[in-house]
Amino acid sequence: MSVVNCVVYNRKTGAKVGDIPIDQVSEALEESPDQFVWVGMHEPDAVEMKLVEEEFGLHELAVEDATRQQQRPKIESYGDTLFVVVRTARLENEDIAIGHTYVFVGPRYVLTVRQGASLSYAPVRQRCEKNPKQMKMGPGFILYALLDFVVDNYFPVMEDLDHYLKEIEHELFASTFRRKTIRHLYDLKHELVRLRMATTPLQDMCSYLMHQTENQLVPKAIYPYLRDINDHVLRINDLINAQSEMLKVAMDVNLAMVSVGQNEVVKRLASWAAILAVPTMIASFYGMNFVHMPELQWHYGYPLALAVMAVGCTVLWRRLRRVGWL
Amino acid sequence: MSVVNCVVYNRKTGAKVGDIPIDQVSEALEESPDQFVWVGMHEPDAVEMKLVEEEFGLHELAVEDATRQQQRPKIESYGDTLFVVVRTARLENEDIAIGHTYVFVGPRYVLTVRQGASLSYAPVRQRCEKNPKQMKMGPGFILYALLDFVVDNYFPVMEDLDHYLKEIEHELFASTFRRKTIRHLYDLKHELVRLRMATTPLQDMCSYLMHQTENQLVPKAIYPYLRDINDHVLRINDLINAQSEMLKVAMDVNLAMVSVGQNEVVKRLASWAAILAVPTMIASFYGMNFVHMPELQWHYGYPLALAVMAVGCTVLWRRLRRVGWL
Amino acid sequence: MSVVNCVVYNRKTGAKVGDIPIDQVSEALEESPDQFVWVGMHEPDAVEMKLVEEEFGLHELAVEDATRQQQRPKIESYGDTLFVVVRTARLENEDIAIGHTYVFVGPRYVLTVRQGASLSYAPVRQRCEKNPKQMKMGPGFILYALLDFVVDNYFPVMEDLDHYLKEIEHELFASTFRRKTIRHLYDLKHELVRLRMATTPLQDMCSYLMHQTENQLVPKAIYPYLRDINDHVLRINDLINAQSEMLKVAMDVNLAMVSVGQNEVVKRLASWAAILAVPTMIASFYGMNFVHMPELQWHYGYPLALAVMAVGCTVLWRRLRRVGWL
Amino acid sequence: MSVVNCVVYNRKTGAKVGDIPIDQVSEALEESPDQFVWVGMHEPDAVEMKLVEEEFGLHELAVEDATRQQQRPKIESYGDTLFVVVRTARLENEDIAIGHTYVFVGPRYVLTVRQGASLSYAPVRQRCEKNPKQMKMGPGFILYALLDFVVDNYFPVMEDLDHYLKEIEHELFASTFRRKTIRHLYDLKHELVRLRMATTPLQDMCSYLMHQTENQLVPKAIYPYLRDINDHVLRINDLINAQSEMLKVAMDVNLAMVSVGQNEVVKRLASWAAILAVPTMIASFYGMNFVHMPELQWHYGYPLALAVMAVGCTVLWRRLRRVGWL
Amino acid sequence: MSVVNCVVYNRKTGAKVGDIPIDQVSEALEESPDQFVWVGMHEPDAVEMKLVEEEFGLHELAVEDATRQQQRPKIESYGDTLFVVVRTARLENEDIAIGHTYVFVGPRYVLTVRQGASLSYAPVRQRCEKNPKQMKMGPGFILYALLDFVVDNYFPVMEDLDHYLKEIEHELFASTFRRKTIRHLYDLKHELVRLRMATTPLQDMCSYLMHQTENQLVPKAIYPYLRDINDHVLRINDLINAQSEMLKVAMDVNLAMVSVGQNEVVKRLASWAAILAVPTMIASFYGMNFVHMPELQWHYGYPLALAVMAVGCTVLWRRLRRVGWL
Repeated sequence: MSVVNCVVYNRKTGAKVGDIPIDQVSEALEESPDQFVWVGMHEPDAVEMKLVEEEFGLHELAVEDATRQQQRPKIESYGDTLFVVVRTARLENEDIAIGHTYVFVGPRYVLTVRQGASLSYAPVRQRCEKNPKQMKMGPGFILYALLDFVVDNYFPVMEDLDHYLKEIEHELFASTFRRKTIRHLYDLKHELVRLRMATTPLQDMCSYLMHQTENQLVPKAIYPYLRDINDHVLRINDLINAQSEMLKVAMDVNLAMVSVGQNEVVKRLASWAAILAVPTMIASFYGMNFVHMPELQWHYGYPLALAVMAVGCTVLWRRLRRVGWL
Repeated sequence: MSVVNCVVYNRKTGAKVGDIPIDQVSEALEESPDQFVWVGMHEPDAVEMKLVEEEFGLHELAVEDATRQQQRPKIESYGDTLFVVVRTARLENEDIAIGHTYVFVGPRYVLTVRQGASLSYAPVRQRCEKNPKQMKMGPGFILYALLDFVVDNYFPVMEDLDHYLKEIEHELFASTFRRKTIRHLYDLKHELVRLRMATTPLQDMCSYLMHQTENQLVPKAIYPYLRDINDHVLRINDLINAQSEMLKVAMDVNLAMVSVGQNEVVKRLASWAAILAVPTMIASFYGMNFVHMPELQWHYGYPLALAVMAVGCTVLWRRLRRVGWL
Repeated sequence: MSVVNCVVYNRKTGAKVGDIPIDQVSEALEESPDQFVWVGMHEPDAVEMKLVEEEFGLHELAVEDATRQQQRPKIESYGDTLFVVVRTARLENEDIAIGHTYVFVGPRYVLTVRQGASLSYAPVRQRCEKNPKQMKMGPGFILYALLDFVVDNYFPVMEDLDHYLKEIEHELFASTFRRKTIRHLYDLKHELVRLRMATTPLQDMCSYLMHQTENQLVPKAIYPYLRDINDHVLRINDLINAQSEMLKVAMDVNLAMVSVGQNEVVKRLASWAAILAVPTMIASFYGMNFVHMPELQWHYGYPLALAVMAVGCTVLWRRLRRVGWL
Repeated sequence: MSVVNCVVYNRKTGAKVGDIPIDQVSEALEESPDQFVWVGMHEPDAVEMKLVEEEFGLHELAVEDATRQQQRPKIESYGDTLFVVVRTARLENEDIAIGHTYVFVGPRYVLTVRQGASLSYAPVRQRCEKNPKQMKMGPGFILYALLDFVVDNYFPVMEDLDHYLKEIEHELFASTFRRKTIRHLYDLKHELVRLRMATTPLQDMCSYLMHQTENQLVPKAIYPYLRDINDHVLRINDLINAQSEMLKVAMDVNLAMVSVGQNEVVKRLASWAAILAVPTMIASFYGMNFVHMPELQWHYGYPLALAVMAVGCTVLWRRLRRVGWL
Repeated sequence: MSVVNCVVYNRKTGAKVGDIPIDQVSEALEESPDQFVWVGMHEPDAVEMKLVEEEFGLHELAVEDATRQQQRPKIESYGDTLFVVVRTARLENEDIAIGHTYVFVGPRYVLTVRQGASLSYAPVRQRCEKNPKQMKMGPGFILYALLDFVVDNYFPVMEDLDHYLKEIEHELFASTFRRKTIRHLYDLKHELVRLRMATTPLQDMCSYLMHQTENQLVPKAIYPYLRDINDHVLRINDLINAQSEMLKVAMDVNLAMVSVGQNEVVKRLASWAAILAVPTMIASFYGMNFVHMPELQWHYGYPLALAVMAVGCTVLWRRLRRVGWL
């Protein structure tokens, strides 16, 4: 069953009233005007979505969106309800798993639908239930708590990327070049682009919540908290931009380092070629068949030639070492 | 004949009344104030355009635009009619075929003119005729249905490009470099630029439709649907931007990989040159004609020399292998 | 004489009244309140400019601008007159000739001053005189016709640049690299930058004409036509931006192709060096002077050695061919 | 104890009244309505933050922010108090130490909380106490003085970076390439990105202070001073942008210089290879074993051969020198 | 003495009344309400600044700014006076000298303070004194004349940079690469960045002058002239942007040309290596000591071998020449 949770809360006290089955929601709400429900679903099938669509009177377009996995983060108001789409990010075995959460907020209900690798909202529910005072603010507060949780979960991801970039930096400036480094840079860019698509729209969403006046779901007392989320979003975006800039420079550095590395290889190659060329050339001299070559008759001609070769190589080797080619 | 379809609908019932010839449109509209027509044309010639211009009283400039193939996507209002230009994209044998559609919307008619590789709107007509309830909203709903169809058709194209980029990535990080990869990157960029020219203006168009108050063609009930199109357009643009960014990095990666590849070639070249230089040098020693070269007289001088060469080469080969040059 | 044309038109009929000398303009205008003049000048000298300045009562700053060749495109209103600066582009022997046109528009006159390689406006005059109905709109219509003509003349230029880019693309991906290609890319960039400086301000100018309310020179009936010009300007700018983007990628592709080309040269060089090294090394073996080298005594030693060399070279050549180095 | 300072001032006279313990602040404020306090804390612990939160009635969210070290610079108003976050920068052993300062400003108090490598505000306090006339403006003036001090401290940092860039330029265009230069460029970029994150939000903050009307903390007389800070912030941002642009070009220059350097190495390598090839080739001629080689019998054949080699090498060396390859 | 000029003008006539000492300004202004003064100073010391601060009642912050050399261009109004900061540029021995000018404009005075390499305003004064009609507009006109002069002085600087870029282009596409070219590109970028910092704020300044309504220093009659300055500023910025774009492309071209150059060097190197390898290889054949090598006994064996070598080299040389490697 994909209904993870379905709990009734009392708005007067802020306390949990109790779990109920999903199909008794309307009855529970009719029972007392002070009650509201918070339903959590995970990848519901079409039948279940149909059920909640009727139970809560959701808009057809919003429900259609919530069954897909590729929506853009947004907030839309349909009459007195809000439809919120967010992308969540969390680390999963060194990879960044991006999931979707769809939140329907009405005057007396909150419905979260998780799709894909979305975060679980159990910690949010625990935190909310521990703060009955704030739960008195109703569904608007739960929306804030959800958004806050989603945004706060970007930070460990960003830290992980930061750590990853640090490692790449280390590789970049290491003396030996590794082909893998380029792959790492590319992958990091890919993650940043994915994250940015998730976080950029959040700024507009916070602003929308604080300035929309159509419905009364979000009480003014929550505004400072929304501003706080907004600050976190700005900071996330600052970090993503900063990383993107550094990554761009790292790409350039990488290219420069490859060229530098090649430079060094060519220099070393040239040096050894020169050193080997010396004895070969001298030997070729004494391989000539001239009749009159006095050195050939000398008793110590051969060792002398070898000595000259050795000295020549050593001198050259030292010199090249000094100018840094070897 | 380039008139693909010419159908009368009843606004009260939303149902199809029947097909009529294009030159009886005015009569059909006069017959009953509840009727409206939807005409579909494909690359009409000048005579046909003249006919519909008079039949519907279209503005001379709009008609002039609709006969060309290179218009920018836009919405313009001429009195109580709207003139809409969109570019459509679809896959055609691995290529992206971009066509133009011109839509004239009046209080009692919709006229679509397809030019070039434009999508066919038969599926839209089918979907509309199946929803007589929504067809009661009149020409404005048809306009929405057309725009929705056009925008939804960008998604498979984007997926195709995404698939293409994935392939290029694979080529990029393959161990052997292929000249074709650069061509692929260039072609992908070209497609992205073409698509962006088609999709960027759509945002303004949705916004215009939702905020224009000059005429009553678009009823308020359609606004959530237009907002939905707008979201899709935003998502398309997000995807195009993300791909462009990745493509830029892929270009850089490509350049780095070419340099890395060259580096490796130079290293291997240098290694083999060094290995070959050893026996050549030793052989040149014993090619010298010194009278006193004791080794030359040794019985096993020659095999010894060959052995020294073989050992030298092997030692060097192993060493180069270890440092990764071979 | 630099006065190309000086014609009186009747606003009531829209028809041409007749040519007059430039210094009888005031008299002609006084004669009948229904008449207006359209004067065309080409690179007038200071005396002529002084003459028209007084004849039409032009503003000193505008006249000063019109005698220079480097003005930025703009529209300025001086009381009930408009001063318009545009840059025109046309193809001239494969080059893009950019000229300046200055237009002074008053309630009863239009004065065009062409500087440098500006377009000739004879076609505009012909078109206007063929449409007496529209000429009844007066000087404002002539201004539209001029702007339309200027903007439409950018299209063949853009097509030419597009053709040029296509040629460069062809060069880029050709198997042999040509130094000239880089020059072509640079020149194309230069033309795009020049064109952009001419076309970017046109958007603001159209917008200004449609929103300025200070004077009544531009009747509302002309607005759809101005919007049409605006669309063309947007399309030109779209094209310029698209080309600039492609050009940027082409620069990168070019750099990658140069590197790839070098890679191939190095590989081929290395291959031939290896092939030649084989016989040289073998020959050096048998050039050694060891007393005991049995092969030297063999009857077929020499041809055998040559055969070994030939086989070695062939095997190596085939192998290198297979891995694509040759 | 992390309370660095806790001083009472008189608003009528602007003079310092005296130091008091932090827990007697409320009493001191009650004593006389003309008094206000300025408390300075450095990395307070949770207990101390709790104390001041109660003493001054600070907002829970602001206090929570102030205990973290990673806030984004911002100004927020909570009722009649302001909460300000700034990042400070100063040089510390060639590194740029970035710290955080949190300022709470109420009608009758200023509380600064320094975290990490934040600047010490002793100089601000001294300057303020020397200007009792300005201190009459109350907490708003202290806020200005703090911001002014923070912004002015960016200038020496920018000068240091400028100096650093100059050094890198020097390295770039030096004849010998140093691997370290790339690292320096990367590090400079890193510092610029960090600084920009600190300074960019300051512009909005100045603007907010000058346009907010919710509370009366900042008297109009301070506006010209805030405008002055704003100018400094603009200048800092100008400098950061200018440096970023130059750095980007420096990266490109660096890459070009590496390629140029490689070019020169290859040329020199090729030159020496050519020079050595001459005598080797000539020697190989006279190593041939033809029976009829007249030169071999010549009495001066050997020295002549050596002379030819020497001349050949010298001619080649000179020629290569002239074309700049050596 | 750093007071360059101190002249009294009559607003009724626009004519110069006469020079006066700087410390009699207040008396001169009191004498007649129709008089105003124009004081020009060059790098005044603290005492002189104190004097004029008191004489004209200048604002402390503005005076503080005027004694520094690093202000950002801006306009600020202090009550009924304006404080203007501009950066001036002029050519000085092939370098661009950037100076600062501070202008204080009151209802009855203009004070210019030049710092560093600022332009001298003698030509402005001459031009103003020749136009008593315009001088009747008072200090506002002088401000216009100063700004106009400053902006017009950017044009020769831009032309110089344009000329410089042309030269660099020439170097870029020359057949021999020069290390200096990279330095020139870097220096040009540096100048463009400096100039942009001077000119970008001017746009806002013109706009501010035309829209500020706080004081009456700038009469409406001057607006068209300010618009003219604004046009010039826009054109300067257009030119700077165009140059920056071309420069960016030039950097890329440069890198490509370096690679192309290296490509050519490698090809030539490879060609000569191949040509030299032919005779060396043949000679090594006949250096073999096989007993049975018939060619060695031939009477014309040696010249034949030489001939074969010569033919081989020539054939190879021609072939390489044909494919463009030599």
